[in-house]
Amino acid sequence: MVELVGSVNLDTIRAAHDRIRPYIHRTPVLTNSWLNDACGASLFFKCENFQKIGAFKARGATNAVFAIDDETARCGVATHSSGNHGAAVARAAKLRGIPAHIVMPSDSAKVKIRAVASYGAQVVFCESTEEAREIKCAEVINQTGATLIHSFENEHVVAGQGTAAIELLEDIADLDLIMCPVGGGGLLSGTAIAAKSMSPQIKVIAVEPANADDAAQSFRAGRRLVTQKRFTIADGLRTNIGEPNFAIVQSYVDDVVTVSEEAIISAMRTIWETMKIVIEPSAAVPYAAVAGDVIDVNGKRAGIILTGGNVDLDTLPWIPNREA
Amino acid sequence: MVELVGSVNLDTIRAAHDRIRPYIHRTPVLTNSWLNDACGASLFFKCENFQKIGAFKARGATNAVFAIDDETARCGVATHSSGNHGAAVARAAKLRGIPAHIVMPSDSAKVKIRAVASYGAQVVFCESTEEAREIKCAEVINQTGATLIHSFENEHVVAGQGTAAIELLEDIADLDLIMCPVGGGGLLSGTAIAAKSMSPQIKVIAVEPANADDAAQSFRAGRRLVTQKRFTIADGLRTNIGEPNFAIVQSYVDDVVTVSEEAIISAMRTIWETMKIVIEPSAAVPYAAVAGDVIDVNGKRAGIILTGGNVDLDTLPWIPNREA
Repeated sequence: MVELVGSVNLDTIRAAHDRIRPYIHRTPVLTNSWLNDACGASLFFKCENFQKIGAFKARGATNAVFAIDDETARCGVATHSSGNHGAAVARAAKLRGIPAHIVMPSDSAKVKIRAVASYGAQVVFCESTEEAREIKCAEVINQTGATLIHSFENEHVVAGQGTAAIELLEDIADLDLIMCPVGGGGLLSGTAIAAKSMSPQIKVIAVEPANADDAAQSFRAGRRLVTQKRFTIADGLRTNIGEPNFAIVQSYVDDVVTVSEEAIISAMRTIWETMKIVIEPSAAVPYAAVAGDVIDVNGKRAGIILTGGNVDLDTLPWIPNREA
Repeated sequence: MVELVGSVNLDTIRAAHDRIRPYIHRTPVLTNSWLNDACGASLFFKCENFQKIGAFKARGATNAVFAIDDETARCGVATHSSGNHGAAVARAAKLRGIPAHIVMPSDSAKVKIRAVASYGAQVVFCESTEEAREIKCAEVINQTGATLIHSFENEHVVAGQGTAAIELLEDIADLDLIMCPVGGGGLLSGTAIAAKSMSPQIKVIAVEPANADDAAQSFRAGRRLVTQKRFTIADGLRTNIGEPNFAIVQSYVDDVVTVSEEAIISAMRTIWETMKIVIEPSAAVPYAAVAGDVIDVNGKRAGIILTGGNVDLDTLPWIPNREA
């Protein structure tokens, strides 16, 4: 898996873009004069909340599923995921006409289980630990011969995620920096390779919840640390950064900074109110760093990847729970 | 005021478009494959929730404020409004550099009062009846010489609101029908004149909350009826349709249909969930008619004007109130 570091480059990201173009949206880049005035910068929001399945994960999963050779593909694909990646793999497999086996914790949100099942995938339940997920997924692969599509430790997934940055840089000239959240590091590593290859002077800054700050701690330490996590509302970012992804981060990323839970919730609400778009908590993490002056964007042109918009509208973080 | 009927035509709407172009957004038209599949049609959503001040009202108010001759303009403009029109007039007056006097009920939402004040307008409070608003506004005009910018009984406002339909028809070819909500009728009359003038075969259908169905009742009766209103969550649509606006509706609109409060709330949530955009209840009214089969769109290409996105995110209609 470590060869991932060398195998993803601008050429493979461009090849991924050609491969997935028929199946994904070229999402719009939105701006907002109120937010620009508030931070004294020009912010460009790449709206992956408008992407197929409601998140950038459609890019990497589609690239990985369509990159498999025909004979191998016949046995299908498998992954474990409680979130957007499972839906993205299920959808890509349906588009290719091959089986998909999605291992999900049995306590996953019903809406997410339904989304995966709606693409005709076989949902396999397991306990909700990382270990149980991996064991169950290995079992499924052993029984079916399916190909594993890991959600971030996979060269085709990383290349696919990098296509969002290509589109952003094609649409918006002269960006000074680009910001995205980091969980497992699939989006961050693809974004960093694409951005630095297209514009070497661009700064790439990752943002992470302070409650799940393994990437920031690892970046400071110069080696990958697996840390104890506290709860974060940014559920897409609870994962530890992958080993090959961290190697890419060390080579290509300029900084990894952190934000509080309060800052994430406030940023999410501000974007809903001013931009009139629905984003999930994980997507609000980079803007939280801008609003809190953790990243200085004053006078700059800054791109932000809004990673997704899949939220449960029954419970918004700024509305007190009725049962609470 | 009745000459409004004859004075608005495609030429005056195009002139309005030229006049306001520097000050408004050309808003995007979004589509959603899930919603299309659900209703067996091609729906095209004109996203005025992304418009300046968060609503289409920026179009009409800007046109009316900039249409006044220089000498008259020096005395400023005045209107009464508890919602988006007040902010739109205040912003337009600031852009033109003239005074604005906005009469608002003293029980208006604080966020709306702040929005108007943020543009430097003078906020004048009154009691919350229609009569009190009109009397106070007349007083202000008497004292200041300001020009009244009525929110729908004004030819320049109607022409300005019609520019959204021009953009929609320019961007999307071969629409079979176009739907918009109706309150006072400013948007509906501008939309109907623009659409029928550009494409005589297009059907124009207005949708109204059943709890405020004066336009639908008037349309059936063939004469303007002022009806008793019940509460509707679609606060932008509580007004009775204006007399000159109704005359235009009689000439240009194919049907006026109604939807329940439950249908409006459900449609609003569906659009947030699937399209990942924030729209206000009034903006959800046309899609509520599609989702409830009140309008048959099967096999058709249908445009919907999403009128605005200004909601109070502290209280969403599908989340039970904590104090309830």
